[in-house]
Amino acid sequence: MPRIALHLSYDGQGSVGWQTQPGGIALQDQLEKALAQIAGHEVSTICAGRTDAGVHAVTQLVHFDSAAARSPEAWVRGVNSHLPANIAVQAAVTATDEFHARFAARRRRYHYLIYRSRNRNPLLDGRAAFVYQPLDVARMDDAAQLLVGERDFSAFRSSQCQARTPVRVMHSVQVSQYRELISIEFVANAFLHHMIRNIVGSLFQVGAGRKPVTWLGEVLESGDRTQAGGTFSASGLYLSGVDYGAALALPLWPEAPSGLLWH
Amino acid sequence: MPRIALHLSYDGQGSVGWQTQPGGIALQDQLEKALAQIAGHEVSTICAGRTDAGVHAVTQLVHFDSAAARSPEAWVRGVNSHLPANIAVQAAVTATDEFHARFAARRRRYHYLIYRSRNRNPLLDGRAAFVYQPLDVARMDDAAQLLVGERDFSAFRSSQCQARTPVRVMHSVQVSQYRELISIEFVANAFLHHMIRNIVGSLFQVGAGRKPVTWLGEVLESGDRTQAGGTFSASGLYLSGVDYGAALALPLWPEAPSGLLWH
Repeated sequence: MPRIALHLSYDGQGSVGWQTQPGGIALQDQLEKALAQIAGHEVSTICAGRTDAGVHAVTQLVHFDSAAARSPEAWVRGVNSHLPANIAVQAAVTATDEFHARFAARRRRYHYLIYRSRNRNPLLDGRAAFVYQPLDVARMDDAAQLLVGERDFSAFRSSQCQARTPVRVMHSVQVSQYRELISIEFVANAFLHHMIRNIVGSLFQVGAGRKPVTWLGEVLESGDRTQAGGTFSASGLYLSGVDYGAALALPLWPEAPSGLLWH
Repeated sequence: MPRIALHLSYDGQGSVGWQTQPGGIALQDQLEKALAQIAGHEVSTICAGRTDAGVHAVTQLVHFDSAAARSPEAWVRGVNSHLPANIAVQAAVTATDEFHARFAARRRRYHYLIYRSRNRNPLLDGRAAFVYQPLDVARMDDAAQLLVGERDFSAFRSSQCQARTPVRVMHSVQVSQYRELISIEFVANAFLHHMIRNIVGSLFQVGAGRKPVTWLGEVLESGDRTQAGGTFSASGLYLSGVDYGAALALPLWPEAPSGLLWH
């Protein structure tokens, strides 16, 4: 059966997350129901990154198999006509039989957004974590560099994480600021469960001046989850890039992801 | 009684609009309930711009009178603790007895956001109008300049408009683009009901190539609502500035309004 790859985006606010759930209310369930309408048969999807409840995606990528002969346009606009407002297909291409949304991904990128101000911003509710404490972004960026490389991220891994190994290759972390918005961009081969939200909780400790920059390296070395900061809110997290190299002819690494309130 | 002025922001998505309604579900009702909790008495507010259902505000300004001796901090954080996530007070100051949120405003600014792309963006649902047709932004900006000056805006006024006169002074209109986002910034002494959304509907006709640039001037001259384009969605509209000159010591004209997905 031909294998189809879809570029998908969604607003995770109020959602139970990507992965299929009894009751059929997960993002995966919403998509598979809409795909079945167009395919004329049941469809099972596999995605690049199984985002948690409340987490957003600018560039999620899923694949599925279907014998139905449909145009790319049908897999995009046709499926979108069956999807609710919080989720939409952006593009569709035929992939090779060997392509796999999860295992073929070489790198993933996430952005984490913090709104730093004295008072909360209703227009960023569910879209960015709110922090009222002053944050030293340069210190956060210095600390973040200690995470780059092939590392054991056990200290930032949730107890529910099912990955076989806690080792990941962090290619880059970049902390930047535009007025009240702080953006933290993470690029790695893959991420552990809650890894980014736990790292952000620790970067917050450094940025707020509660811990020295070097502390983040010590937490990483300790491999001890209890040493790290708290788990930051899902609302600030966006899947913003997936890299398949030449295996997929789709632009999945936008320089300035729309809808991120950041560029 | 001392007069207090509040800088307020809100996400208008899913809201019935500013003005108080039976049932108490309007933004004004939400605010007045929270103010009463802090003041210890019923509070009536007057605002700079009575936004419609679905319209957002980065810089709404309201005034009210209260004999309760409260710190500015109480009027901000205290009130916020009684407000839902879609609305928040940003700042509070004591105003003179003569200050009036509506009549003292010299200029208002609104931004209208259009997301121009082949497919809708779930992260901009309720935050920007979606247009899939290609738009010529330079043409839209040329046409928009025909609206500048002291003009009779009858052609862009809704039939429900209660203003005494259709004449307004449009100080500037600026159409600009950043990737898929088109921003239209309007500055005027005041606006008629649905005036911006009707103008945007007409600018769309020009941008999509259906009407020549000069047509917008003809519509304005006609004074005939039936000549203009359709009323664009409320979801793209943001109250983003109010100018009281020296009458109020609050920054209400941010250069780059946070939460607008634009700067």
